[in-house]
Amino acid sequence: MAKKGESNEVKSGEKGITVKKSEDISEWYSQVILKAGVADYAPIKGCMVIRPLGYSIWTRIQDYFNQVLESYQVENAYFPLFVPESFFKREAEHAEGFSPEVAWIERKDLSEERLALRPTSETIMYHSYSKWIRSWRDLPLKINQWCNIIRWETNAVKLFLRSREFLWQEGHCVYETEEECIKEADEYIKEYKNLCESLLAIPVKIGRKTDSEKFAGAVFTNTMEALMPDGKATQLGTTHHLGQNFSKAFDIEFLGKDSQKHYPFQNSWGFSTRLVGSMIMLHSDDKGLVLPPKAAPIQVVIIPIFREDAKEKVLAEAEKLRKSLSGIKVKVDSREGLTPGWKFNEWELKGVPVRIELGMRDIENHAFVACRRDSGEKQSFKLSEAAQVIPGLLDEIQKSLFEKAVNSIEKRTKKTADFVEMVQEINKGNWVEVPFCGEKPCEADIREKTEGITSRVITGNISKEQGETSCINCSKKARYFVIFSRAY
Amino acid sequence: MAKKGESNEVKSGEKGITVKKSEDISEWYSQVILKAGVADYAPIKGCMVIRPLGYSIWTRIQDYFNQVLESYQVENAYFPLFVPESFFKREAEHAEGFSPEVAWIERKDLSEERLALRPTSETIMYHSYSKWIRSWRDLPLKINQWCNIIRWETNAVKLFLRSREFLWQEGHCVYETEEECIKEADEYIKEYKNLCESLLAIPVKIGRKTDSEKFAGAVFTNTMEALMPDGKATQLGTTHHLGQNFSKAFDIEFLGKDSQKHYPFQNSWGFSTRLVGSMIMLHSDDKGLVLPPKAAPIQVVIIPIFREDAKEKVLAEAEKLRKSLSGIKVKVDSREGLTPGWKFNEWELKGVPVRIELGMRDIENHAFVACRRDSGEKQSFKLSEAAQVIPGLLDEIQKSLFEKAVNSIEKRTKKTADFVEMVQEINKGNWVEVPFCGEKPCEADIREKTEGITSRVITGNISKEQGETSCINCSKKARYFVIFSRAY
Repeated sequence: MAKKGESNEVKSGEKGITVKKSEDISEWYSQVILKAGVADYAPIKGCMVIRPLGYSIWTRIQDYFNQVLESYQVENAYFPLFVPESFFKREAEHAEGFSPEVAWIERKDLSEERLALRPTSETIMYHSYSKWIRSWRDLPLKINQWCNIIRWETNAVKLFLRSREFLWQEGHCVYETEEECIKEADEYIKEYKNLCESLLAIPVKIGRKTDSEKFAGAVFTNTMEALMPDGKATQLGTTHHLGQNFSKAFDIEFLGKDSQKHYPFQNSWGFSTRLVGSMIMLHSDDKGLVLPPKAAPIQVVIIPIFREDAKEKVLAEAEKLRKSLSGIKVKVDSREGLTPGWKFNEWELKGVPVRIELGMRDIENHAFVACRRDSGEKQSFKLSEAAQVIPGLLDEIQKSLFEKAVNSIEKRTKKTADFVEMVQEINKGNWVEVPFCGEKPCEADIREKTEGITSRVITGNISKEQGETSCINCSKKARYFVIFSRAY
Repeated sequence: MAKKGESNEVKSGEKGITVKKSEDISEWYSQVILKAGVADYAPIKGCMVIRPLGYSIWTRIQDYFNQVLESYQVENAYFPLFVPESFFKREAEHAEGFSPEVAWIERKDLSEERLALRPTSETIMYHSYSKWIRSWRDLPLKINQWCNIIRWETNAVKLFLRSREFLWQEGHCVYETEEECIKEADEYIKEYKNLCESLLAIPVKIGRKTDSEKFAGAVFTNTMEALMPDGKATQLGTTHHLGQNFSKAFDIEFLGKDSQKHYPFQNSWGFSTRLVGSMIMLHSDDKGLVLPPKAAPIQVVIIPIFREDAKEKVLAEAEKLRKSLSGIKVKVDSREGLTPGWKFNEWELKGVPVRIELGMRDIENHAFVACRRDSGEKQSFKLSEAAQVIPGLLDEIQKSLFEKAVNSIEKRTKKTADFVEMVQEINKGNWVEVPFCGEKPCEADIREKTEGITSRVITGNISKEQGETSCINCSKKARYFVIFSRAY
């Protein structure tokens, strides 16, 4: 059961955010999500409820990404929630990597095999793949599923960022050649970046993971990382080149054009509802949620302002204005018994990108006032121009949120070759690019010494001009530049 | 693990259906689904894999129904997979009804409460509702979720019709008044009927359930039932009026306009991936799948037929034809090394509603041949008229499948007041409308005596003109007419 106090949601509108983002970002983040009605704690330790506002953001992400999937001819399917225990064990690294956080079903019949709840679906899917794939004609096989995932985290729940159940997509593709396989693993991480940057206005870094941080069972992992305002990174998506590790473990073989049997190459890739939380943490402010227009379920809210005698006229004009904004998601808030001020606060809390205020005086002037949620800036426009100016305003907000985030992250991206300086910078809320040997024991040593600093992403090789550089931590030669930070 | 032989999927195209629908419908049904690649058995007892072809049908159902949800202002959300044991027990009937088929998580920490995997989400959702609902302003609250559901069936798996995990939607709405609540419970069952009839071409009967068959915890249940070709009924969707049973059990209260606290009224309603299986069983034939055009992921397949020297010309014309059919989902099957005949069989097996054959002679005649999957009928059309005739042809197929099903079901709907005749008719593959007292012990008696005949749906009251009629089974007065049959 949830701890007392975890579920202290205050009804939206009744009370604003009581702490500043700059003062206590963790408490601020929870309050924004709870009070705006994005999500709620569930009465089960480590679990959350995604409320309609939060789920609608996830739906927009799904809609966007389903189009990407279609362009790659990846098809959606659905595999079981349950994974037989023996399946995990077939790929040794994979089994070891996931075992601490796997949840199991109570067996009703002890003669039956123990079943896990999927922490990821490689093994259960690849068992089917081994039945379906016979010849080169069956390749590439490209399947995605949208589903719930269970990882029995022992750390405290952090809404969207860490919970025992979350929603995600997982793509699982099989190819004749390693070349195609790597090519697409690299393309999918770029598509993830496009999604984050264009839809959610989250600037991200993509690149390979070090060996310590790669997926259990992969040859290599591409990752997408974002820096949050508190200086912690969030891993927002990964694509794994699995090589033939799983095809060998699951007996996936195909008859090639050469009439010989071959093991195909595989990749897998996923992002989760964590995207929703990271977007919120990045853009929102002390008044509540700030949503990028492309991700917002309501893009414009019209607040009619009137005395009783002008009510009909103002409501009619508001409705007319709404209809003129075709292609934009507009809501007219015509609820009675609530003041305009109360409504302003509520829609600010809920992050609607543009608020339109429309009163009798505006109507007499054939005008309306638009207020930007991101900057608070107010501007008056002619009613007749609404259909022209509002889409432009929404684009501007989208762009401006992204640029603001880019600037902030650039400022907080540091570079050093000195270990002490690295730790100092990270403790100040930055992430730091450093030369690194890439070896597992060295990385474990860094994590231990610093109580949790980890490598996030390889940003580039050491160029020839730079000559030999030492690892930030050990005396060995550095292999590449890597961003280190604390992370969610 | 699956029994040996469960997973004997034959690659599509390699081998057709080997039994006739009229001879062994159960084996025929499995073969159609496995060989067409709609779904597969999972390596876990009682579970299945929904392959891309099957999942795309589910996606069409989701797209259709999400629009219905929007028109009722029902919003999508996501609640946890886990339900604390104590939650079930709060509504006594509900707990009793579901307990045999609930699956539980192995506890890692015995001090924590036992957690079930949701067999339905009333209890976990209504706990949150009790936090979110404060005043009449928060009502109606209308939430739906699309999710996976776990019911640990002990009966054998029947692809789509009975499995331990399935996908569904569950709507859960809360209202100030009982009147609104009942009104919408009755409207949602009509929307379900529209979905089945217009999208899937499945004729259904809707009406109330008897007390024995209503949802555990409901005041009453509306059901939607279809009659399958083997004479068994499938329950395809239900809407439940829950009254105040759950609001009282979960302390959901609201402050009314009268400033008094009240318990609101609730309904819940759902349909599942069972729809996909029923649609397939109803329309498909000895050659494989037959899909209603509105539910088909590929509506038209163009098979170019050519010798090597005409290849470019024919492929170019096929592509031109595809592009001319905008708004229709068309695939050009230009795969090499496969004969046209092989392709015909494959697309017949996969149920594509219209096949277009396009060869050099057709092109010279500015014509093409269209072949209907449902009737096998072939017709030649002018190439220039494709965009006009193909949509009409698809509509005709949709309509024809529905009418055929309506006729078949009408013929197999019998009426009697005689118990022996009822059983005889049911054993011949019909469902039978009979006068019934509606009492639980009487219904239990019928089920036992007949080894599984159950009431499906109340079709109407006994009219005054009919006077007093006795129950089909006992000496009591009949309350209403009810359809009885065997069922999946």
